[in-house]
Amino acid sequence: MASTAPEGAITRLMDELGKLPGIGPKSAERITHFLLASQARDVLALADALRDVVTKIHPCRRCCNLTEGEFCNICMDGKRDPSAICVVEQPRDLMSIERAGTYRGLYHVLQGRLAPLEGIGPENLTIDSLMQRVNQGGVKEIIMATNPTLEGDGTALYVSNLLAGTGVKITRLARGLPSGSVLEFANTQMLADALEGRRAF
Amino acid sequence: MASTAPEGAITRLMDELGKLPGIGPKSAERITHFLLASQARDVLALADALRDVVTKIHPCRRCCNLTEGEFCNICMDGKRDPSAICVVEQPRDLMSIERAGTYRGLYHVLQGRLAPLEGIGPENLTIDSLMQRVNQGGVKEIIMATNPTLEGDGTALYVSNLLAGTGVKITRLARGLPSGSVLEFANTQMLADALEGRRAF
Repeated sequence: MASTAPEGAITRLMDELGKLPGIGPKSAERITHFLLASQARDVLALADALRDVVTKIHPCRRCCNLTEGEFCNICMDGKRDPSAICVVEQPRDLMSIERAGTYRGLYHVLQGRLAPLEGIGPENLTIDSLMQRVNQGGVKEIIMATNPTLEGDGTALYVSNLLAGTGVKITRLARGLPSGSVLEFANTQMLADALEGRRAF
Repeated sequence: MASTAPEGAITRLMDELGKLPGIGPKSAERITHFLLASQARDVLALADALRDVVTKIHPCRRCCNLTEGEFCNICMDGKRDPSAICVVEQPRDLMSIERAGTYRGLYHVLQGRLAPLEGIGPENLTIDSLMQRVNQGGVKEIIMATNPTLEGDGTALYVSNLLAGTGVKITRLARGLPSGSVLEFANTQMLADALEGRRAF
C-alpha cells in the first residue's frame, strides 16, 4: 500500500539539503521540519546568504582567495607582509592557517593540486599568476603549504622547480608529530618525518 | 596577533548554516566550502527550495497538514477513507505515519500540544477545526496519535473528553515493546504498557 506523497516544495528542500556533505536523509528531514517551523525571515536569511555567495563571491585578482571585492581582505590589509607568499591548494586551507593566527604574510591559492590521473595539469591551477607575482619582484619567501599527501607534495615539488631560478627562498611546512598526540599511535611516516626534522633542544 | 577576517558573505553563510539543528561550527564551515566549490545552479537550487517552502507552503484548510494548494495531497486523495481521522501534533508526525504505509484514513494536525507551563492552551491548537470536522458528520473513528509523553497524553485526554459526546469511536496508538528491541533494555513503563496491552496468541 503506497502512502500519499508529501508536497513538492517540501520534498525538494529535503532533496537539496540531502546533497550537502554530512547530511543524510534523516538529518535533511529534521532540518526541513525545523525550517518549516521557523520564522519566514530566518529561512529567507539562509536563502539570501546562499544566493550571496554565488553572486558576490569570486577569486581575488591577486591571490585567488575568495572575495566580494576586486582584491581579498588579506591582500588589502596593509599590515601584512607582502614579501612572503604562502601557497595553498584551497581557500579552506588558507582559512585554517588564518585561524592559527601566527602567519602575517600573503597567500596564493592554487585552486587545486596536480592530479594527472584526474586530468588536472599545471594549466588548471593558478601557477601562472603565482609566477607573475614573483616576477614582479618584492617577494623574498614562498612557503609551500599544500597538503602533506602524494599529490600535494608533487604539486609543491613542481612549483618549487619552476621557482628555482628566481632567487626566492622556498620553504615548506614542518612535518613531525602532531601536538597533543602520543608516540604509541604515530605511524612510521610521522616518526620518520619527526626524526629527520629534529631540532636542537 | 589577530588574523584578517574572512569575507562577509562567507561568514554570513556559515552563521546561518550553524543555526540549523545538528550543524555545529565545523559542519557549517565544511558545508560552506562545499557550496563555494559547487556549481552556481546547485547552490541557487537550494536557495530557491528554501524560498519556496516559505512562500508556497501553508496549512491545509481542512486538516492543517502542510500544503502548496488549498487542501493537502492526503485530503485530495480520493482513495483515502474519510471516516477515520488520525490526530497528530505536527506535520512531521504525519509524515512518519505515512512512511509506515499502512494507514489509509485522513489526518488532523493540532500544530502542537497542550503545555500550560509554556502558555500553550487549547486556543493555540487546531482543536476547534477538528471539532467542526467531526460535527459535519461522516467520521466514525478518531485515532489519537499524539506523542507518548506527559504533554502528548494530556492533549489526547483533553481532545477525547471534548469528543466524548459525539458518538465517534476514539482510539489511541498501541503501546508496548518496540519491534526489534530486547526485554533486557526495556524500561518499567514499556514493560507495564506491554503487559497491560497483551493480546491472545
